[in-house]
Amino acid sequence: MTKVYLLLRTENSKLGIVKAQLSKFEEIKELDEVFGRYDLIAKIETENSPAIKRFIQNKIRVQEGIKSIETVFAAEE
Amino acid sequence: MTKVYLLLRTENSKLGIVKAQLSKFEEIKELDEVFGRYDLIAKIETENSPAIKRFIQNKIRVQEGIKSIETVFAAEE
Amino acid sequence: MTKVYLLLRTENSKLGIVKAQLSKFEEIKELDEVFGRYDLIAKIETENSPAIKRFIQNKIRVQEGIKSIETVFAAEE
Amino acid sequence: MTKVYLLLRTENSKLGIVKAQLSKFEEIKELDEVFGRYDLIAKIETENSPAIKRFIQNKIRVQEGIKSIETVFAAEE
Amino acid sequence: MTKVYLLLRTENSKLGIVKAQLSKFEEIKELDEVFGRYDLIAKIETENSPAIKRFIQNKIRVQEGIKSIETVFAAEE
Amino acid sequence: MTKVYLLLRTENSKLGIVKAQLSKFEEIKELDEVFGRYDLIAKIETENSPAIKRFIQNKIRVQEGIKSIETVFAAEE
Amino acid sequence: MTKVYLLLRTENSKLGIVKAQLSKFEEIKELDEVFGRYDLIAKIETENSPAIKRFIQNKIRVQEGIKSIETVFAAEE
Amino acid sequence: MTKVYLLLRTENSKLGIVKAQLSKFEEIKELDEVFGRYDLIAKIETENSPAIKRFIQNKIRVQEGIKSIETVFAAEE
Repeated sequence: MTKVYLLLRTENSKLGIVKAQLSKFEEIKELDEVFGRYDLIAKIETENSPAIKRFIQNKIRVQEGIKSIETVFAAEE
Repeated sequence: MTKVYLLLRTENSKLGIVKAQLSKFEEIKELDEVFGRYDLIAKIETENSPAIKRFIQNKIRVQEGIKSIETVFAAEE
Repeated sequence: MTKVYLLLRTENSKLGIVKAQLSKFEEIKELDEVFGRYDLIAKIETENSPAIKRFIQNKIRVQEGIKSIETVFAAEE
Repeated sequence: MTKVYLLLRTENSKLGIVKAQLSKFEEIKELDEVFGRYDLIAKIETENSPAIKRFIQNKIRVQEGIKSIETVFAAEE
Repeated sequence: MTKVYLLLRTENSKLGIVKAQLSKFEEIKELDEVFGRYDLIAKIETENSPAIKRFIQNKIRVQEGIKSIETVFAAEE
Repeated sequence: MTKVYLLLRTENSKLGIVKAQLSKFEEIKELDEVFGRYDLIAKIETENSPAIKRFIQNKIRVQEGIKSIETVFAAEE
Repeated sequence: MTKVYLLLRTENSKLGIVKAQLSKFEEIKELDEVFGRYDLIAKIETENSPAIKRFIQNKIRVQEGIKSIETVFAAEE
Repeated sequence: MTKVYLLLRTENSKLGIVKAQLSKFEEIKELDEVFGRYDLIAKIETENSPAIKRFIQNKIRVQEGIKSIETVFAAEE
């Protein structure tokens, strides 16, 4: 199992839509609207590292309304 | 009482409009156009922490012309 | 309940010690060594917002070996 | 009158000492321990811009325990 | 005399236009297209601090094509 | 020979197009879609420093879909 | 094969020592002293993602003189 | 001729010493103590790009009291 944290910033008016879209993915195990320097934190778990990269490429990088994605990989696999 | 500082960047041409909109909220006790890495600093005070989060969600994150919001929570409550 | 994510950087040689110390706190529900811009991500949950601030002040800000603490508050309480 | 916000990071174990030292200066009108990306926010007001720069040079930049100082100038004078 | 450095990022395709516009202001004593984390560095000198703030408000913050402005004040006046 | 690393962020939906465009330039010796704080890392090699600056000005800064360019120069020439 | 870029900052006086140490590892395929926001960029290639994480934990995070490590994972495996 | 801007942060108590040291180099054409996110800005001019890199390596990276160096290269040569 591989775990990744996504630290996301969204366009101001699109936060609700992005959150609703992300909440549909079963790979996202935890999803929080947050206050600080980011707007959303998503915790993703998949079987291995290639799967998690494909998920970000195919499901996150195509979402409208996301301004920046910072990916943080957990050490344990 | 809970206090929060918002460090805001706005779209270059929208600074005046955003400032005018924010100045209407009584929860914002101090509002400065600034020079440095940010464009506006707003000091917000509400009764407690849930109220301040709702205020940011319902009044700040819906404003057009804001590019990024960095929220800083004061320690004392 | 209040949830906070701590994004931590540690001194290079102190990462193991800091991780071992933090793993003892029951307020920290999840703790990952990470790769990206941070060294550790900790998820904290306490009863309310004042309790979480006291925890950071009394248990995290006194730890040796931590270089920077970035606190991110989840929206829901 | 000139107003400046200082966004400060301190060494983890020195936050209390720095806060106590800063709280003695009458030029600092508001001082908060904060959670987010910074550790302290100080609001400074002096008669004019040269005075505020001298205050930072002579009173803040000599304090031990401060790791970084980010200065933000308010627009109005 | 007051001196300020502006560290600017522009929209990718607007760099030439922004540079051409800024080069017309006599308050801008030096203007460089740069490589690093910024796109342009401008050195501004005016009579005093209020004048430099007004110049940024009235001449820089109205320019189209500028994505972010970071203002750095020189110490000497 | 001069070597430069470009750390690029792209608009979320334009990553594929930008990557395809950049992969056509022979000056770009290595090009990776990446996860972290950036979206693409490109390694550029040209004959000397002026040539590499002209390449960034004429070939990279005109590309649509690039949000930010951070240029890092290798020491050896 | 997994590829990672490390963006490193070192203590000012330790750059030479860190560079010499890192140049001994066969997992580091390319190592440049750089100018920009970082001091060194290292390109690492190992067989798979768990191996690259272990390498960073066991060989990089124990090096003295490194102030911060930013890890960027290439997409392809 | 090649021009570079150095954006420097120094240890809080070492700013004066670093400034005094840097002011002795004839390659540094302008040197300002600044307020914002940095502590010093130095403008360097040398004959060409390799010379400017050697100057930073041999004269700046050996200075005590400098915490971080961000190098920004001007476009024109």
